[in-house]
Amino acid sequence: MPTALVLIANGTEEMEFTITLDTLVRAGIECTSAFVPSASEVGLSSSGGWGVNEVLVTCSRGIKITADTTLDAVLAQQGKVYDAIVIPGGAKGADTLSQSEAVQKLVKAQYDGGKLVGMICAGSLVAKMSKLPKQPLTSHPSVKSYLDQDYEYKEDSVVTSGKLITSRGPGTAFPFAFEIIRQLCGEEKVKEVEGPMIFPKPANA
Amino acid sequence: MPTALVLIANGTEEMEFTITLDTLVRAGIECTSAFVPSASEVGLSSSGGWGVNEVLVTCSRGIKITADTTLDAVLAQQGKVYDAIVIPGGAKGADTLSQSEAVQKLVKAQYDGGKLVGMICAGSLVAKMSKLPKQPLTSHPSVKSYLDQDYEYKEDSVVTSGKLITSRGPGTAFPFAFEIIRQLCGEEKVKEVEGPMIFPKPANA
Repeated sequence: MPTALVLIANGTEEMEFTITLDTLVRAGIECTSAFVPSASEVGLSSSGGWGVNEVLVTCSRGIKITADTTLDAVLAQQGKVYDAIVIPGGAKGADTLSQSEAVQKLVKAQYDGGKLVGMICAGSLVAKMSKLPKQPLTSHPSVKSYLDQDYEYKEDSVVTSGKLITSRGPGTAFPFAFEIIRQLCGEEKVKEVEGPMIFPKPANA
Repeated sequence: MPTALVLIANGTEEMEFTITLDTLVRAGIECTSAFVPSASEVGLSSSGGWGVNEVLVTCSRGIKITADTTLDAVLAQQGKVYDAIVIPGGAKGADTLSQSEAVQKLVKAQYDGGKLVGMICAGSLVAKMSKLPKQPLTSHPSVKSYLDQDYEYKEDSVVTSGKLITSRGPGTAFPFAFEIIRQLCGEEKVKEVEGPMIFPKPANA
């Protein structure tokens, strides 16, 4: 069973997190969500580190999601490798994820190891902060100016460049999730998952 | 500011819940999520009733969401009326919501009071269990056979019949949310909210 690690921080866009994780689970991908504290949150917890019981995240539009674990706990499992790492957007959440040295190091190692990395919306900032090489990429338009000097900036809904999959916003989260499934499980699995989700028929069908 | 009450139970489809609530919040609608226990969960809590600190919900694909409050607490605020009530799907969650007498009574009063009710996926079962009158309606195909004798069953992505808005599944959750916004806030607000969410351009655009 393929595995995916989906990161989450306070201010993460809850639709991008939920659509991606839920759709991957429907494809049989074993998903783990891991909380990443912001620089100002580190050390705020009573135990002096963010424990697995302190991972209640307030997302960008107020939905409260409890992550499965913390990134610290994931990194403590030395040698554990996921088939995909997913970075959702949401301005404040993406700020935290992109500025986290632990995330940068993890994403760089994942990419250098030839494993999949998916970033959506402002989450694409993590590509730059993790020093991924110049290549085709997209993001939410609000962070385009931070990326278009260093990458071949595209405006497609989903951009696949080798093992880096990027996407634009909540409105492209379904095709983003399907592209991750396509890469990990193949096109047949995409069709199997898509059917029961009942997408609107194209206007010309 | 218009208000909406979004119900949630263990087994609720997390995308349908999250997409609807988040999109309504983007439109400036004040949303409250309220937990509804299943018949077997009533009385399980330590306090003998579900308190506001005991509303950690496990959704259909494992995402854990903490509701703002409980339906019991909402009903205790006598005279409080929301501009819309939203019922998400997910087989187990919709089972709980549709079998709850409190939900049935609330939805019937909302509908009889000329206020909006939105139901998506298996959530449409609540229309029947609340004895809403025969009219056009849709649902997830998996529960069509429970509804097509008592309603004018449609297969459109979103069906608006007076104050009853119904929809089909995660894949139709965005147009479902936009229709609720259209009814509460008008078409201009739909356009304002839709833009920054960056939906894929139609293939023929």
